[in-house]
Amino acid sequence: MSRVAGAGPGGGAVRPKALVFDVNETLSDMAPLAQRFTDVGAPGHLSATWFASLLRDGFALTAVGVNPRFADLGRTLLAARLRGQVEDVEGAVEHVMTGFGGLSTHPDVVPGIRRLAGLRIRLLTLSNGSATVAEGLLSRAGIRDSFEALLSVEDAPLWKPAPSAYAYAVETAALTPAECMLVAVHPWDIDGAHRAGLRTAWVNRGGGRYPDHFSSADLEVASMTELAAQLARLDGLDAVGD
Amino acid sequence: MSRVAGAGPGGGAVRPKALVFDVNETLSDMAPLAQRFTDVGAPGHLSATWFASLLRDGFALTAVGVNPRFADLGRTLLAARLRGQVEDVEGAVEHVMTGFGGLSTHPDVVPGIRRLAGLRIRLLTLSNGSATVAEGLLSRAGIRDSFEALLSVEDAPLWKPAPSAYAYAVETAALTPAECMLVAVHPWDIDGAHRAGLRTAWVNRGGGRYPDHFSSADLEVASMTELAAQLARLDGLDAVGD
Repeated sequence: MSRVAGAGPGGGAVRPKALVFDVNETLSDMAPLAQRFTDVGAPGHLSATWFASLLRDGFALTAVGVNPRFADLGRTLLAARLRGQVEDVEGAVEHVMTGFGGLSTHPDVVPGIRRLAGLRIRLLTLSNGSATVAEGLLSRAGIRDSFEALLSVEDAPLWKPAPSAYAYAVETAALTPAECMLVAVHPWDIDGAHRAGLRTAWVNRGGGRYPDHFSSADLEVASMTELAAQLARLDGLDAVGD
Repeated sequence: MSRVAGAGPGGGAVRPKALVFDVNETLSDMAPLAQRFTDVGAPGHLSATWFASLLRDGFALTAVGVNPRFADLGRTLLAARLRGQVEDVEGAVEHVMTGFGGLSTHPDVVPGIRRLAGLRIRLLTLSNGSATVAEGLLSRAGIRDSFEALLSVEDAPLWKPAPSAYAYAVETAALTPAECMLVAVHPWDIDGAHRAGLRTAWVNRGGGRYPDHFSSADLEVASMTELAAQLARLDGLDAVGD
């Protein structure tokens, strides 16, 4: 926590006023999606390649200033992967996309969010996907009410990691970038948020190594419960007198 | 060929003055790379996921105005994929990257390039990777001399598909964008080149469907030899009197 943005009057780090959560893979557990591929007779490992290619194409369009629909890219690239592997491509695409819309949260998410909400930190989501996916995910987990807003880049100029995507969330919350902390499992999201002036927390559930080519995170945690524990130890300026 | 940029004085399409070739997968056959993964005890399908994630991270940085080294991203993401799968991660990364630097051209490339060179169209490459990879690939294939320049985005402001990458190639050739045609297997590359004002040829060796989310190509061909045949049928304004 060496960034001035996060320092309080005494020089110590202070709690962010708002946490902005990425949704896909950060809150949702995408592992069961591999089963959806095997259900339709395709190899389960296509799930990872498909998701990487979805982000690849989305970021290519972001780089040229275009804001496509996440689900449209997902469906098109899914059909491309499944063609030649399964007979009923349309039905298989539907089966996988339905699975994508019906994922569950990681086991650490519900207790972590409950504890973070208890710290009186404002909670939002910001997804490259649609807000309805986040709405369904958090409602099924029983934690929808802990979030004040579920945002999608559909309402921003561009996808994350473009600066304008983070600016949209910051402006919606009526805060400054430095008062917000982006929480994500994806290093490209941490990097983009950092460049846009937000504080960042990398959720590293798998014990991976952070890639050198991206700006590093202000915090690294293994789970949302650890994030709550770390933030609880920081000065809560707004909570003085509680 | 409905674009005015490619129309000659009589309204018919004319040959581009220069072809700008993508390198990885467009000229090189990356299929043998899967074997390099199995050599080191990792699943061969990691090859596709790795390459998609390499482009994903590269494009994420392109979207925020950063120009990383292709091979650096490749090594870092390769190590991340192989950690936990193989014992000697460093040795395995070296084995795969050496394979990447020693690929061969697709079977249609040598006859196609020879025929294109015979049409007196200027030939260049423009890669997100280093020029040395292209140099080795084309030298081993015996067609290095057909190319007047092997360009890398290392000398451009940003990676493809950013407009400035294509502008760098166009300026190096001292032509206008409309006088150049980008040749690539990747729809994101076709899309970026089109937006930068170049004409485009999509090489579709696998018979895939072009994704709706990208600008479509001016030409679609199944091979470099078909590209040569199609361009041979266009008016060669510069060749008048030959």
